[in-house]
Amino acid sequence: MPATSTDLRIAVLGVGMMGAFHADALSSRIRGAQVTVVSDFFADKAAEVAGRVGARVDSDPIAAIHADDVDAVLIASPGKAHDEQVNACLDRGIPVLCEKPLTTDVESAYGIVQKEAALGRQLIQVGFMRRYDAEYVALKKLITDGELGNPLLVHCIHRNPDVPEHFNSEFMIRDSVVHEVDVARFLLDEEIASVEVIAGVATSAAPAGTHDPMLVVFRTVSGRVVTDEIYVRSGVAYEVRTEVVGERGSALIGLDQNLVVKRTDGRWGGSIAPGFVERFGAAYDLELQRWVDAARRGTVDGPGAWDGYAAVAVCEAGVEAVRTGQKVPVVLGPRPDAAGSDAPSADMGTSSQPGIAESSAGITAPDLEAAR
Amino acid sequence: MPATSTDLRIAVLGVGMMGAFHADALSSRIRGAQVTVVSDFFADKAAEVAGRVGARVDSDPIAAIHADDVDAVLIASPGKAHDEQVNACLDRGIPVLCEKPLTTDVESAYGIVQKEAALGRQLIQVGFMRRYDAEYVALKKLITDGELGNPLLVHCIHRNPDVPEHFNSEFMIRDSVVHEVDVARFLLDEEIASVEVIAGVATSAAPAGTHDPMLVVFRTVSGRVVTDEIYVRSGVAYEVRTEVVGERGSALIGLDQNLVVKRTDGRWGGSIAPGFVERFGAAYDLELQRWVDAARRGTVDGPGAWDGYAAVAVCEAGVEAVRTGQKVPVVLGPRPDAAGSDAPSADMGTSSQPGIAESSAGITAPDLEAAR
Amino acid sequence: MPATSTDLRIAVLGVGMMGAFHADALSSRIRGAQVTVVSDFFADKAAEVAGRVGARVDSDPIAAIHADDVDAVLIASPGKAHDEQVNACLDRGIPVLCEKPLTTDVESAYGIVQKEAALGRQLIQVGFMRRYDAEYVALKKLITDGELGNPLLVHCIHRNPDVPEHFNSEFMIRDSVVHEVDVARFLLDEEIASVEVIAGVATSAAPAGTHDPMLVVFRTVSGRVVTDEIYVRSGVAYEVRTEVVGERGSALIGLDQNLVVKRTDGRWGGSIAPGFVERFGAAYDLELQRWVDAARRGTVDGPGAWDGYAAVAVCEAGVEAVRTGQKVPVVLGPRPDAAGSDAPSADMGTSSQPGIAESSAGITAPDLEAAR
Amino acid sequence: MPATSTDLRIAVLGVGMMGAFHADALSSRIRGAQVTVVSDFFADKAAEVAGRVGARVDSDPIAAIHADDVDAVLIASPGKAHDEQVNACLDRGIPVLCEKPLTTDVESAYGIVQKEAALGRQLIQVGFMRRYDAEYVALKKLITDGELGNPLLVHCIHRNPDVPEHFNSEFMIRDSVVHEVDVARFLLDEEIASVEVIAGVATSAAPAGTHDPMLVVFRTVSGRVVTDEIYVRSGVAYEVRTEVVGERGSALIGLDQNLVVKRTDGRWGGSIAPGFVERFGAAYDLELQRWVDAARRGTVDGPGAWDGYAAVAVCEAGVEAVRTGQKVPVVLGPRPDAAGSDAPSADMGTSSQPGIAESSAGITAPDLEAAR
Repeated sequence: MPATSTDLRIAVLGVGMMGAFHADALSSRIRGAQVTVVSDFFADKAAEVAGRVGARVDSDPIAAIHADDVDAVLIASPGKAHDEQVNACLDRGIPVLCEKPLTTDVESAYGIVQKEAALGRQLIQVGFMRRYDAEYVALKKLITDGELGNPLLVHCIHRNPDVPEHFNSEFMIRDSVVHEVDVARFLLDEEIASVEVIAGVATSAAPAGTHDPMLVVFRTVSGRVVTDEIYVRSGVAYEVRTEVVGERGSALIGLDQNLVVKRTDGRWGGSIAPGFVERFGAAYDLELQRWVDAARRGTVDGPGAWDGYAAVAVCEAGVEAVRTGQKVPVVLGPRPDAAGSDAPSADMGTSSQPGIAESSAGITAPDLEAAR
Repeated sequence: MPATSTDLRIAVLGVGMMGAFHADALSSRIRGAQVTVVSDFFADKAAEVAGRVGARVDSDPIAAIHADDVDAVLIASPGKAHDEQVNACLDRGIPVLCEKPLTTDVESAYGIVQKEAALGRQLIQVGFMRRYDAEYVALKKLITDGELGNPLLVHCIHRNPDVPEHFNSEFMIRDSVVHEVDVARFLLDEEIASVEVIAGVATSAAPAGTHDPMLVVFRTVSGRVVTDEIYVRSGVAYEVRTEVVGERGSALIGLDQNLVVKRTDGRWGGSIAPGFVERFGAAYDLELQRWVDAARRGTVDGPGAWDGYAAVAVCEAGVEAVRTGQKVPVVLGPRPDAAGSDAPSADMGTSSQPGIAESSAGITAPDLEAAR
Repeated sequence: MPATSTDLRIAVLGVGMMGAFHADALSSRIRGAQVTVVSDFFADKAAEVAGRVGARVDSDPIAAIHADDVDAVLIASPGKAHDEQVNACLDRGIPVLCEKPLTTDVESAYGIVQKEAALGRQLIQVGFMRRYDAEYVALKKLITDGELGNPLLVHCIHRNPDVPEHFNSEFMIRDSVVHEVDVARFLLDEEIASVEVIAGVATSAAPAGTHDPMLVVFRTVSGRVVTDEIYVRSGVAYEVRTEVVGERGSALIGLDQNLVVKRTDGRWGGSIAPGFVERFGAAYDLELQRWVDAARRGTVDGPGAWDGYAAVAVCEAGVEAVRTGQKVPVVLGPRPDAAGSDAPSADMGTSSQPGIAESSAGITAPDLEAAR
Repeated sequence: MPATSTDLRIAVLGVGMMGAFHADALSSRIRGAQVTVVSDFFADKAAEVAGRVGARVDSDPIAAIHADDVDAVLIASPGKAHDEQVNACLDRGIPVLCEKPLTTDVESAYGIVQKEAALGRQLIQVGFMRRYDAEYVALKKLITDGELGNPLLVHCIHRNPDVPEHFNSEFMIRDSVVHEVDVARFLLDEEIASVEVIAGVATSAAPAGTHDPMLVVFRTVSGRVVTDEIYVRSGVAYEVRTEVVGERGSALIGLDQNLVVKRTDGRWGGSIAPGFVERFGAAYDLELQRWVDAARRGTVDGPGAWDGYAAVAVCEAGVEAVRTGQKVPVVLGPRPDAAGSDAPSADMGTSSQPGIAESSAGITAPDLEAAR
């Protein structure tokens, strides 16, 4: 595969923490990619990142999407900007990796699903990076291989050491629990049918009225139960743990036990990953590499528009569950035939290496040359 | 302390699996005790155990309670016999260790609480052995010492490899979940206010209509949330795990990781305790030793009648929650002043050794000599 | 088994830390035992312990051994007193549990082996408590069951947080490494043929000239290699770890991982046992219970005189290895026919409970009644 | 950094398992690299790999080194070819990543050290991939940060499930133990002064005369002791474990505990990495990325010629130690001033991502343009 002449030229929209992290990765660790345009509401931030990665700045994200030196788009802008930006990518017909959420409301997300389906080819990948984490991949394989028997229960733990003040209960659902929504769908390979939120005593570190921690309970279409403890002001570190309980065994990931130290305080143990970069850094890079590889072939290699839409729908039900204290059903529109594969292609060899994605039936590769 | 002249002479009522286990312990591993009478519905079983431990058989449990060669009683008979037997012990005024449940209905349990309170001294200890387990003791201490800050959530896992056919959903609540009821009360030091049962897909190993596994959700009086996965046909082993999540940290017990083996199948790991004897054998023995030590002083050293009553009340609500699918409140009668301390005395020294229980204020020691 | 009339009446010789610990256990946690006499060089210490356990003081340990109210003897006096005291027990023909070392030189130890053999019955048990530890028992069983195939290598780690100044290199061999000497013999079921000591850089906490840590290398008669890191001023805690590497797998004990806590310093882990009481408390109690049970039947149930002698011989070679830097052969005298079983009887049921020892062929039970 | 015009054009010499693995990585996962030439003794193997990665075949490795379309060389040919190939790279003055061993004898290795030093710039990097492993990096940092105090002992375990017949004792030293040689030098930052080999009972899977397992003992110049259990026919899996014991604590890596599964055989645990690709795949990729990044700047970023030479010298002493059973001193020639940094540049950010290497003082960057 000759690398130089077909490097994917990428516009990065939004270079806050996540976008800047991706821009740096695309410029130093990812093969076959080149950041050519950076766009951000804050001009100085855009200039700083663009300078670092050798790109130009375009203050207009829609113009960036349509620029001649752009083959694909990475959207890491605030969620409310996603709808317009993703639609622009579809309009131009170029691949886009959109950080979650796909959009901020169910209708616009479903509109995107339908619009992409009408195009007859997959262009949208959504940034659920856990699907690229070696432990989640191993857990998924264990289930798929039938080694646990029918999976009956999933228990998730998701803790952050602390968050900004604005992380209220609804924000916790949309920004944090959304990851377990995708994890549950990914592992169980079915849709979530309802959401219930059990709020107990809150940590004194939480603002008044914020239920932190909460216990979120999902029921899937087939009746399986998924629980998620979301606790974003734990004061400790970044903990993401998932246990699947099946008919013939159970499996647990996220123990995060590597270097074990014994110290003069008489304790044994190690350090917990302080944040998502340390915990999921390798998964983010693999996600990017596989997206770049797929985009150069004109397809995607991971969760698609449908996955993004389903997550939006479940989180919207979750927010209503927080407000009402009731079990809230999740209602999804019909799934178009060509709407997004929901799993990255299988790993080949070691877990840190990209596989070769099989094209989904009926999905035509984009013509990268023509797009220039 | 001269041992021989004041050995506690014990009647063991019911020598099924649990009673026989206790009778053997009292005859071989527990200091200061002697099984003098064995009673069981099945005469041959009674004869077998009595022969083994050097006791006589009395087919009438009430007669055994009143016998001259009995200073204290251990009740391990079927739950429905407990009410009459415990009452007989109260009537005679001798110490009794009653296996859970205290009784099989709330009214009789509360009647016992009131009757003991009227006596003005504690005679009843209830067999919640987990309070004597070294890990639970350490977890309780961690909470009491404030090292986790205010405890907000408790997650429990309780799995058995398999159970007899008659373990239906209600039985699972009364016989298995009852342990987490006591654990939650013990660790959090407050009453449970409501019970909810979330039933999902059942294992195909469960009889039709039995929700196995279930997720039971307790809310305490102060609003804390306690979850319990009860799964009694897991096919794996006996797993009891408890995690407490607080404002300043979390703690987990029950990993059950000791001998680690690496084998030619390329796996690392160990064996999970197959049953409660392996997992809680030391706790049972410590429970017995401390009960015997306390009984010889005329008191108890562990969970009392009130704890037994509260557990019955919560389980009754749990059974209703299974039937109705609703969140069911737990209603407790007023607690009499002298009704049962709910914690064993603090450990002194190593975890496997009994401490010296402080007498509860106002509780007069029984006159063991006079009782003979 | 009627308990009261045949309680074993025990003289405890030496009530320093270890002896006092045993005296307390025999008086509160061990069934069928009674401490009747306490003897110690320090009169006040003897009086204190005697008062606590309801025994009388005898300042003369030899007189205590021969006293009418003594059926058996527990020796926890300084090592140099052991030779005379053990011989006195043999002279009187009563069971003795002797803390390591059996004696402080090879000749006297072998003399005791021969003297006991001449008696034709086993009276001496040596206090290698690790043989009663649940993990060591499980490891031994794994080997015996052939699950690791032929054991080829054993790696031991033995660390103390700190020790008194007088723990020089020789003392470390005699007092600490002696445990791994017995562990190696116990696990591999063969004698040690040579000892080599590899001394590297010492911790700055060690006195000048003391090799702390050291690596001790044993070779067994069949050629297996056993390594022992002995490090008694580690500054951390009490760590005892043993790994056996076989032809078909390996096994590791001593990870000491129970309660796992996550704290606001971002660390996960637990506390390491600070000392031998916490780590081996249950093993000590089981050792005592089984010795008492066996002594009441007139036999022993654990490592015997031969094991004590072999350990002395290996340690003496080890001390020479420290001095010379050479590999030093271990030379043992011929083993008399009746010299000491080297394993406790197999566990029956849970790991913390004593089994019923089978009497060794040809060993006659002492007449406890006559001895009074 | 514009990627396309300066992609490093690499000749891969030797495409056995290791070389083919690297060629694939350079063509799919490493940024800024392009395999342009493949050379191998076996023409068909060369053709296969070349076809896969879009390179041409050159049957003459020396011609490949001198080819116009080659900027840098990766040597994965058999060890005996390394001397000539590395020298050819030095002759042309282009960067080379040489898999261990640097050469197969001390003299030729030292000759290379001297020749590179005479050039006045570092061109040679040696493939000790463990230095790029996240756990080793964390362990090194712990030591460097002083958190363990002065490191006193290092214990290494290195096990393979099985190996080809030709892995005799000498081969085990040169091919397997060589990794711990570098690990010890890397972690302790000093040279190894002597090697001793302790051979015990061999597994029955080993050919006659092969000491498998062996215990290799290194002493460093300052007197620290390093032990290495090398066991290449363990029958289990690929296990690499390292423990460093210091004055103020100890640290252990290689527990390899990630996904934990509980199965119907009543066991808990996980799978051990079956081979080096699974265990060190990420480290190999990071090694390559950082070498490529450094080579494009005209330098190296990892262990250099001196490290390769020192490893050869220690292994040669180790082979003599196997033959003689003696402790064999390691004799190194004087280290030239400019001979190779021995640590990769510090990580910046997450552990799986390359940092930006600082150029060593006095090392001039090669002129990649001119080299074409």
